[in-house]
Amino acid sequence: MEKIPTSTLKRLPQYLEVLKRLKKAGLREVSATKISVFSDIHQTLVRKDIAYTNISASKTGYEINPLQMAIEDLLNWSDTSSSYLVGVGHLGSALLGYQEFSQRGLSIVAGFDNDPELIGTKVHGVPVYSALDLTAMAQKEKVRIGIITVPPDSAQLIADIMVHSGIKAIWNFTPHKIIVPPDIIVEYVDMFASLAVLSRRLAEQH
Amino acid sequence: MEKIPTSTLKRLPQYLEVLKRLKKAGLREVSATKISVFSDIHQTLVRKDIAYTNISASKTGYEINPLQMAIEDLLNWSDTSSSYLVGVGHLGSALLGYQEFSQRGLSIVAGFDNDPELIGTKVHGVPVYSALDLTAMAQKEKVRIGIITVPPDSAQLIADIMVHSGIKAIWNFTPHKIIVPPDIIVEYVDMFASLAVLSRRLAEQH
Repeated sequence: MEKIPTSTLKRLPQYLEVLKRLKKAGLREVSATKISVFSDIHQTLVRKDIAYTNISASKTGYEINPLQMAIEDLLNWSDTSSSYLVGVGHLGSALLGYQEFSQRGLSIVAGFDNDPELIGTKVHGVPVYSALDLTAMAQKEKVRIGIITVPPDSAQLIADIMVHSGIKAIWNFTPHKIIVPPDIIVEYVDMFASLAVLSRRLAEQH
Repeated sequence: MEKIPTSTLKRLPQYLEVLKRLKKAGLREVSATKISVFSDIHQTLVRKDIAYTNISASKTGYEINPLQMAIEDLLNWSDTSSSYLVGVGHLGSALLGYQEFSQRGLSIVAGFDNDPELIGTKVHGVPVYSALDLTAMAQKEKVRIGIITVPPDSAQLIADIMVHSGIKAIWNFTPHKIIVPPDIIVEYVDMFASLAVLSRRLAEQH
């Protein structure tokens, strides 16, 4: 499978958002220029990114439906991957109920926590198990994606357990940099990096 | 106030995490090399980023406490800024209860929604008001930061209302690209960009 640059991968979801909006508005075709305007991404990049789909534009533009499907295929969002989430606190609970994931190939099939009040319950319909059961369950169900929403201090421990359990890709919502073997994929949702930029830019305005 | 590059600003919170961990472990000084190892950021960058604080290292390294304070000052995290959050769904509720923000200069003082069941209640101790009250309240309380956690389709409308209400910085948790006047600061927490990379890299491994 062809390796697509990270920068392209990060822009593809934005094109999908634009395509969905235009489809809702009744359009069936769209030009790279229009995608560029709505996504605020330069049209040279838009064309270059879309080229990975092997979908080409007619004189009037790209057909929206096949383009959307091709981008979802590239992102592996047309398949659904099962994942486990560890840390059913505020943020973890929110993610268990976040319906946007199901349209993006991600199904969170179980939550794990060490709070006895939570274990055995369902949060937004997702069952919560003891963190001690993670390894056995992951090995049995062959789950390959793990989501970390524990406090930062526990992130490395949970990552170690995930790797030991056969998990191949870790989505880390804590700012704690985790250390894993080189074949394990790690992605961060780094809220604080974004908050840092926002806070500083606001202060600079004074 | 000196303009700090975005790439530096995004790394500064990671150094803070490392400093907090080392302090917990009983250390009082730290070298750039050690910060580099723990943050997985090249030490040339570490030194360059830290130079913005005007704190210099002795032979044994930087003193942790003053360095931490200087970074927090740079990020304006030593001051607390009030903010409003619009969209008290799963994600919005989670953010209202997310205690990590208070250590990072952000206080969410009110939530807004259009669900009559939510209006007038408190979520994690934060009062929820009707979205119709946002403009009057923001102008009165001079709140300058707005957080958007509504469904993507409503993001632009809420951004328009925020700008009209005198809000100067928007933290957008939806993937919808919002269009605002050039003096308004917009930062995204783009979960789907990160999910896109994770999904594709996992698929590429097969």
